[in-house]
Amino acid sequence: MKIQLLLTGNELMTGHTVDSNSAMIAELIAGSGHRIQRKVTIGDDLATLVTEMRSQACQCDVLIVNGGLGPTVDDLTAQALSHLSEQPLLQHPQALSHLQQWCDRRKLPINDANLKQTMLPCGVDIIPNATGSAVGFSLEYHNCLIICTPGVPSELRLMMEQSIAPLLANRFPISKQISTLRFQTFGIGESTLQQMINNHMPDWPAEVELGFRVGSPLLEIKLTIQQQAHKIIQQQCFERLQTLMGDYIIGLNSCSLAESIIELLQKKRQTLTIAESCTGGLIAASITEIAGASTVFQAGFVTYSNAMKQQLLGVDERLLSEHGAVSAEVVTAMAQGALQHSAADYAIAVSGIAGPDGGSREKPVGTVWIAWGNKQQLNTQQLLFNAPRKGFQQIVSATSLDLLRRELLAIKAIPRYFHNRAARN
Amino acid sequence: MKIQLLLTGNELMTGHTVDSNSAMIAELIAGSGHRIQRKVTIGDDLATLVTEMRSQACQCDVLIVNGGLGPTVDDLTAQALSHLSEQPLLQHPQALSHLQQWCDRRKLPINDANLKQTMLPCGVDIIPNATGSAVGFSLEYHNCLIICTPGVPSELRLMMEQSIAPLLANRFPISKQISTLRFQTFGIGESTLQQMINNHMPDWPAEVELGFRVGSPLLEIKLTIQQQAHKIIQQQCFERLQTLMGDYIIGLNSCSLAESIIELLQKKRQTLTIAESCTGGLIAASITEIAGASTVFQAGFVTYSNAMKQQLLGVDERLLSEHGAVSAEVVTAMAQGALQHSAADYAIAVSGIAGPDGGSREKPVGTVWIAWGNKQQLNTQQLLFNAPRKGFQQIVSATSLDLLRRELLAIKAIPRYFHNRAARN
Repeated sequence: MKIQLLLTGNELMTGHTVDSNSAMIAELIAGSGHRIQRKVTIGDDLATLVTEMRSQACQCDVLIVNGGLGPTVDDLTAQALSHLSEQPLLQHPQALSHLQQWCDRRKLPINDANLKQTMLPCGVDIIPNATGSAVGFSLEYHNCLIICTPGVPSELRLMMEQSIAPLLANRFPISKQISTLRFQTFGIGESTLQQMINNHMPDWPAEVELGFRVGSPLLEIKLTIQQQAHKIIQQQCFERLQTLMGDYIIGLNSCSLAESIIELLQKKRQTLTIAESCTGGLIAASITEIAGASTVFQAGFVTYSNAMKQQLLGVDERLLSEHGAVSAEVVTAMAQGALQHSAADYAIAVSGIAGPDGGSREKPVGTVWIAWGNKQQLNTQQLLFNAPRKGFQQIVSATSLDLLRRELLAIKAIPRYFHNRAARN
Repeated sequence: MKIQLLLTGNELMTGHTVDSNSAMIAELIAGSGHRIQRKVTIGDDLATLVTEMRSQACQCDVLIVNGGLGPTVDDLTAQALSHLSEQPLLQHPQALSHLQQWCDRRKLPINDANLKQTMLPCGVDIIPNATGSAVGFSLEYHNCLIICTPGVPSELRLMMEQSIAPLLANRFPISKQISTLRFQTFGIGESTLQQMINNHMPDWPAEVELGFRVGSPLLEIKLTIQQQAHKIIQQQCFERLQTLMGDYIIGLNSCSLAESIIELLQKKRQTLTIAESCTGGLIAASITEIAGASTVFQAGFVTYSNAMKQQLLGVDERLLSEHGAVSAEVVTAMAQGALQHSAADYAIAVSGIAGPDGGSREKPVGTVWIAWGNKQQLNTQQLLFNAPRKGFQQIVSATSLDLLRRELLAIKAIPRYFHNRAARN
């Protein structure tokens, strides 16, 4: 069964929007073993839309069209499908009653812009939209089922989960079971890892497809098999990779550094506090983004200025004037202050120069000091990351979480990134 | 001049990666007036890659291929171009010397995996890669210039900026000047806005193309003209929209709520502190993400537990037990405590129920209390957002920043979202 995707929207072509919808669609149909084979993205132009819909519909069994269902003039999907199928646009009673209920709940009057969303090609089947004002719809065109979905991610997700994924699973059951085993790693580069595999596993079996995804900050590794019969070989490969990569593995599936840390702290029944300068709250936010964070995290300190490092964390003024805010002494004092004021068991503290300004010859932009540990032992490390401000904040957050993860797991080995990333003194 | 994009990578098809590269490419060629006309995304399969490259090369003048330059087995771009052009893969001396330098700088030995990146189709031109180990390359195929670029976003960005965008600008100068005027809004939905425009500007000129992008959390509005001669009409439309939308406009181009607030506070020479419970550091992180934040922001408090609200912000225990942590009284006390401990001029404080657990009949998941203002006057508002945890944290952050923005601008009008989003008591 072949599924293709057609994404529409000028914003997708001009660089003003990053498309997250297609990844979501792929993820949600993967559960029933389905896979997007090809996707095409074009702007909001009626003629182009009709041409591309026709061309794709000839190549696949299901065409999911995303975007262009909205109330505005640049929303053209219903019109395009009407042209393609030569069915007139008519007001669909189900779409209208959906819109009425939607407006009622929000105490809004129905307006002409919204009414446009009820004008659909004759003969379509309606797909409910749990949260938005525009329903989805589908139509058989020759041998292709064309499914039109909204561009708003939250609406799309519910529609995919509640209606479209079950429809596809039901209508096109998959016999050949593709199965992927995914895990996340941090601290080894893609080429180093590939070379380690080449050297230590030259007998890699053809049945197991090896895939990589350079994320920020994690590197994802995937082992894909095309048949359930190869499950054992897949598992063997995974175990050998586990031996090879050891403590660089964060966890299975989409496990993040924050999730890993929360789980480790929960097991120990211990808590964490965070004192942040250059990351400005990002480490705390990455922890509290995870449901259940409150079991291990009670307080964080964003001490952006020197005065606040003194006042909120009790950092000694002399340490700041003698060593500077970006120093082992100051991050240690920040971590100590955070432990003391929050009564947490573990602490992370970071202070660095995110840029674009503020660097010096001794401490260039990209320099950071990280402290991590507990009352008994606080470790510090200086690192250097050449990345623009936001990227710097993200990699510093990730690295500080990884250092705490290594501490919680009592990993003694020094991570490779200490060698590659250590600041040159 | 027609430019198309071919994105390769299984990770783009399986839902494990969101493609941000194509938006970046589009943005970086927009400067010279160029626009991506169509993009196609496929998985890592050699035959499919060759077929798609051939089909696209017949439809355009420039084909930018992104991804598949890496050292691993699933990186197939050079091989595909070699098949298509019928040119053998040879070790390219420039690619080799680049790799040698790259490894030397990192004190790494050259390994076989990396050497794969130096095997390129005979006859390609090399495009330097300022940070990564794999060079880019281009080849004329019939009447199409095929340009192969790396999938790692930071490498791609530098290569686009330093080599490819100048190459395109130079080789294909644009006479017809497309010009887009963009601005950001918060607090009005897409359909309401379209209806406002329909009602108040029924004479919208055909020369100005109106576009919307539903971002999270901002709604972007774009006015595009195809000729510089229409600049005045574009400006007139913009001014009428400004009158129509008034205080819902955040700023021009990609101006964020955080940037707007930093600029307003800088003008007043005043400072901000933030006390966060349910957003867990996200509001502080969105402020400190902006370069120059240190001029207006010195400290933030992430007080996730009740004990920390008392200890770090001096919230009275009785307020917590009488009214609960999610209440007007507690967010007011949090804001007061933050102002007092940080000596800032303005404060934001939020406390809410991010879910998935923790809701009650009176205060369901999605309820939040926000306090904002200064020592003289603190305002509070209860709102309700039905969004999953991460989305809830994002919309609460944005709303709290918008409320402070309105305060700093002395906007007296009550925002529409107070009516639509107010919690039902």
